[in-house]
Amino acid sequence: MALISIIKDFHPHNYAKLLDKAAELAPPLHHSIAEPVGGFKLKERYSPEKEEIVLQSLPHLALGKGENLCLDFGTHIVGYLTLELSYTGSHPDAPAYIKLKFAENIAELSENTEEYNGWISRSWIQEEYMHVDVLPAQITLPRRYAFRYLKITMMDTSPKYKLIVRHAEVRTETSSDAKRLPQVQIADPLDKRLYETGVRTLANCMQDVFEDGPKRDRRLWMGDLRLQAAANYATFRQNDLVKRCLYLFGGSRFPGGRVAACVFTQPTVQADDTWLFDYSLFFAVALDEYLQETDDTEALNDLYDVAMQQIEMSIRMCEETPEGGLLLTKDAAKDAFIDWTDDLEKRAAAQAVIIYAIRYARRLARRKNDYSQASWLTEQQEKLRRGAQEIFWDAEQKCYVSDGQVSPHSQIWMVLADVPAPEESAELMGRICEEVDVFAKALSEYPLATPYMHHYYVMALLRAGLKEQARDHMRSYWGSMLDAGADTFWETWDPKDPNASPYGGAVINSYCHAWSCTPAFLITKYFYE
Amino acid sequence: MALISIIKDFHPHNYAKLLDKAAELAPPLHHSIAEPVGGFKLKERYSPEKEEIVLQSLPHLALGKGENLCLDFGTHIVGYLTLELSYTGSHPDAPAYIKLKFAENIAELSENTEEYNGWISRSWIQEEYMHVDVLPAQITLPRRYAFRYLKITMMDTSPKYKLIVRHAEVRTETSSDAKRLPQVQIADPLDKRLYETGVRTLANCMQDVFEDGPKRDRRLWMGDLRLQAAANYATFRQNDLVKRCLYLFGGSRFPGGRVAACVFTQPTVQADDTWLFDYSLFFAVALDEYLQETDDTEALNDLYDVAMQQIEMSIRMCEETPEGGLLLTKDAAKDAFIDWTDDLEKRAAAQAVIIYAIRYARRLARRKNDYSQASWLTEQQEKLRRGAQEIFWDAEQKCYVSDGQVSPHSQIWMVLADVPAPEESAELMGRICEEVDVFAKALSEYPLATPYMHHYYVMALLRAGLKEQARDHMRSYWGSMLDAGADTFWETWDPKDPNASPYGGAVINSYCHAWSCTPAFLITKYFYE
Repeated sequence: MALISIIKDFHPHNYAKLLDKAAELAPPLHHSIAEPVGGFKLKERYSPEKEEIVLQSLPHLALGKGENLCLDFGTHIVGYLTLELSYTGSHPDAPAYIKLKFAENIAELSENTEEYNGWISRSWIQEEYMHVDVLPAQITLPRRYAFRYLKITMMDTSPKYKLIVRHAEVRTETSSDAKRLPQVQIADPLDKRLYETGVRTLANCMQDVFEDGPKRDRRLWMGDLRLQAAANYATFRQNDLVKRCLYLFGGSRFPGGRVAACVFTQPTVQADDTWLFDYSLFFAVALDEYLQETDDTEALNDLYDVAMQQIEMSIRMCEETPEGGLLLTKDAAKDAFIDWTDDLEKRAAAQAVIIYAIRYARRLARRKNDYSQASWLTEQQEKLRRGAQEIFWDAEQKCYVSDGQVSPHSQIWMVLADVPAPEESAELMGRICEEVDVFAKALSEYPLATPYMHHYYVMALLRAGLKEQARDHMRSYWGSMLDAGADTFWETWDPKDPNASPYGGAVINSYCHAWSCTPAFLITKYFYE
Repeated sequence: MALISIIKDFHPHNYAKLLDKAAELAPPLHHSIAEPVGGFKLKERYSPEKEEIVLQSLPHLALGKGENLCLDFGTHIVGYLTLELSYTGSHPDAPAYIKLKFAENIAELSENTEEYNGWISRSWIQEEYMHVDVLPAQITLPRRYAFRYLKITMMDTSPKYKLIVRHAEVRTETSSDAKRLPQVQIADPLDKRLYETGVRTLANCMQDVFEDGPKRDRRLWMGDLRLQAAANYATFRQNDLVKRCLYLFGGSRFPGGRVAACVFTQPTVQADDTWLFDYSLFFAVALDEYLQETDDTEALNDLYDVAMQQIEMSIRMCEETPEGGLLLTKDAAKDAFIDWTDDLEKRAAAQAVIIYAIRYARRLARRKNDYSQASWLTEQQEKLRRGAQEIFWDAEQKCYVSDGQVSPHSQIWMVLADVPAPEESAELMGRICEEVDVFAKALSEYPLATPYMHHYYVMALLRAGLKEQARDHMRSYWGSMLDAGADTFWETWDPKDPNASPYGGAVINSYCHAWSCTPAFLITKYFYE
């Protein structure tokens, strides 16, 4: 997730009791040493053409001005780099001027980052220039990087010496504990790879919090957390990390109590001045799912009101329809994320998200023995469902239309919210799956843009009883990322347009992104029960 | 000084006893805090046009993408930078990507260093790119810089925030002890500025050793040391630092015993594989001058043989002339530095340097009661003088001609070596001073290129008894650097071509260079006796 919202003079409200508990839940970080398993040189600075190198030759491989060395650490890792640098020739009479480029995806190595001009800050590009005054030297870089490939370019030496990279290693960092992984038997080789890649994606995003991506934004987003938590229950089961994140969202909120879309944790905990309609509702969803796993009464007592507040606020953003239903206002719908799809009309999907979230919120109310709230929620949910059918259902086209627009997103969320009857859901999802009638056009005009939305598509297929299609889609969509060389699942991926970036440049994409890790959860929960 | 020489498989010979003593003499480093005294913004990134800033406004001065802030520390300083960085706007959602450029000379600020393509490594350009992940932050950079101006450019932020530079300070570093400076009364304002600028230049080069320049090469060169030591006797009188440097040159030498032109001290002491004919002879000169100041018997006993060896080796590079004189071979002369002047024929000057050095070496021999060596040296000196007169003196042009070339350099060194009789020296130097007959052409074809050579020109004028001309030249040459804005004296300076660089780019020049500090010595020793 990455999104820019700016509220002038924003001062979040912090709840010390919740933040103190979040701080107590800070996870220990685990470390291991990763070393390169291969190496090569790019023949030209920005050319993908490679010349393979035998790693054993590194201590004899001299890098002169303009030359590069690329090291391959075998798979995606997150951690701190240490280089042992030496030289050949005369005693160095000038500093070594070195550029380091850390790449999650091999294609990044041959990109000229000077040319990046997208809307997300170039400060996210993982590259450093450094001067080494004294050689030999052992240098540990202070920043954490997420990468598989490291490109070392000798920007300048002097005619008197060349650089030798004697050794490189990475002290990896994660709060995930591999010893906690269940033994799973997955017969199908593709499913096995999907599962393992999902687990690696999740693990590399598990740090001090569930980060959205360890390269970018390295931050806790509510919508991402909900999916990470689900994957975590199926794998590492480090439920205290979920709890910590829920307390962070509860502990720093908008004035008035809204849950922010994102919470910063450094240098101190502070809600971002970004609010997303759907993300705030996922707080209730994630809390309920956490309680289903843990029965944690403390969390229920501490966070119940926060969850209910989000639902109640979303309902206050609705108006009565002529037929007594409830309809989300256009204005409120603008603040929903749903997906990166360009020009997407989001009102139908956003209204469905309220209905969906109420399902979880009602379970929370019952767990809290708050039956009046539970029945109030049922009432609201019914009004919202009625409103949705009344305003968005188009009997002629036999689909939900959001302010004049037919998109797959509207159908997916309506199905997830149980707005159509089960047989209608199956019919609707079946037509999307087959890309027939209105959906032929809708899918090409308003395609699913992110693995995040593809996840909800798979969940909608499952909700509609189309288990085989769900599995097929997971295998084909996430499988195509594997075919394209993914070691961890990517933030954004369109098999038809492999270089697309919602950010204006692939070099700024995050190639290990938590919201894409869900095959780890789908496979174990739905396809290998 | 900066020069590139490469000897394949060079292994210097180290003398542990001498290096141990050098290590014991490592000076304490003194620190103080320097803060900016002014600030401005460059209107465009590479434009010299400025917009002044009131320093008190810094905490409110927000730097967005592409904007810069320049801080002026008032004069040339050497040390470690600490920045206190903060932000304005929303909580930073991306690292701050910052470029720092440290400039000794204001002109460097508006140079595009990407365009530098000279023969010295661009790694000497004092600039850093850095990512700051968490704001606010206090950052101390690990490298030492030499500068007066600091340009901070915000390479990228995000739309959510701008950078604030709340405070900047520098922990200066020098081994010079200002408390040791004598009280000198210099009535003339220009002389006073020349003296003070020379002292500042020397002080900023006094570090763990006498560095040639604190920006570049930060290293101990023999020819530079000889002048620094002379200036030190007239100012800080930190004679142990001279002793340490002499022991370093004695302690790591070429196989066979030659004194290297330069000694590295990091990570361990190691002679550079650069040998300069004249620089090696200055070892004897510098040792004798040190002993005149200190009567240090230990140093005499430890280093006497090293000094004599240099003289003896230079004599072995000579051949007998038909008339029984000695003449340096052409080959040996090629290894002399003398000056940066292009196409300079160096044999006459190099031969004169032997004769000159023997004057000092003989005094060493007498101090050591080594009378047979002293008389052997006298004999050699006489033969070299005879050879010089026989081969280089041109009776028609009434000047010394080196392999067909008339240059001021040849005359200057012959005068310094007392090769002409005193009245001839006065006549010769007078004609150079007035730029008449052959010298009109010679001075424009083979001009003095460096303050180092200008120093020896002043010394030759003094040797020839032309004290007034000597003072005038010092005042006009070094004075023109002050007029051009020097806070410390520059490595290279041609008043007629202010942007000249022997290195292919002014941005790589050293604007605080020890071999240029000698007004501090000339004024107190010759002009305010």
